Amino acid sequence: MVSKEQKIEITQKSLEYFRKAGIIITDEEENNIEVADFGLGEPETTGLIILVYVNTDRVCAKELVMLPGQTCPEHLHPGVDGEPGKEETFRCRYGRVYLYVEGEKTESRQTNPPDSPEGSYTVFHEIILNPGEQRTLGPNTKHWFKGGPEGAVVSEFSTKSRDELDIFTDKRINRITRVGK
Amino acid sequence: MVSKEQKIEITQKSLEYFRKAGIIITDEEENNIEVADFGLGEPETTGLIILVYVNTDRVCAKELVMLPGQTCPEHLHPGVDGEPGKEETFRCRYGRVYLYVEGEKTESRQTNPPDSPEGSYTVFHEIILNPGEQRTLGPNTKHWFKGGPEGAVVSEFSTKSRDELDIFTDKRINRITRVGK
Repeated sequence: MVSKEQKIEITQKSLEYFRKAGIIITDEEENNIEVADFGLGEPETTGLIILVYVNTDRVCAKELVMLPGQTCPEHLHPGVDGEPGKEETFRCRYGRVYLYVEGEKTESRQTNPPDSPEGSYTVFHEIILNPGEQRTLGPNTKHWFKGGPEGAVVSEFSTKSRDELDIFTDKRINRITRVGK
Repeated sequence: MVSKEQKIEITQKSLEYFRKAGIIITDEEENNIEVADFGLGEPETTGLIILVYVNTDRVCAKELVMLPGQTCPEHLHPGVDGEPGKEETFRCRYGRVYLYVEGEKTESRQTNPPDSPEGSYTVFHEIILNPGEQRTLGPNTKHWFKGGPEGAVVSEFSTKSRDELDIFTDKRINRITRVGK
């Protein structure tokens, strides 16, 4: 669970990142920012800050903010109702993001996953995205990503988001964010 | 046709708008910017500057740059092969964009279409988008849009773009951009 204080503090931090990235958001959007902790209760370590611009049956666009060293844990987007899973493009707008996907393990990686039970992270092919750089991932691709030393702002362009159906490698994880009172 | 000189000059102008919007693009992307004139040969009047980030079978994301008063002419996105037409969300990042769609005609409009044969513009329901504001249009929705006094940078999030199939109200228009040698 994310405490109310954590949610307020991390949301405030994220606004500074939006400013650094030159991204203007409305007051209503500011109130809709999600501070996800994936159920682990350490949102600055394993977490993600998410602003959904649009999410229809066909298209989704979001901004993701990552604090320095914050990790979005390993997951994939499965097919749903005979439709292929979510396809997504990550485009770095500010800072740097370290993205890890299936494929040959990168030997001298820039970062490591956060402390977690063995087997919670299984893919280690590293892709580094600096501002203006992007990568498209197909459905059913295991991936995780981590904010660089200055954090990161990343635009995500994708098919419909159904976060509640994402499959996480770390079985402790619960994607549905709960915020304390 | 867009002359080579027009293409170079307008591309250079667009880079200034990307900077103003705080949007970082790669050198390769800079070389892929499209200066569209819709076949009318007056790209600063009827035209659009387009940078496609990604366009797969399922998802498309672009930045659109509009010079002050530049108009993207009225068109719609029809269904293709039994699939609904393109759905798109316009999100203003910098400046202001005047968007006109089907619906009740706005009586005191902020702008008018460029000079063109009668019947080239038929929808006049005005939506004004300032930075951080956005609007989603469904398939088969006639629309046109015009850059405000300081121009505009607009992110477009959509299903697959098939520009060559767009249906323009002004029958003189040819969407495929040709650039002089």
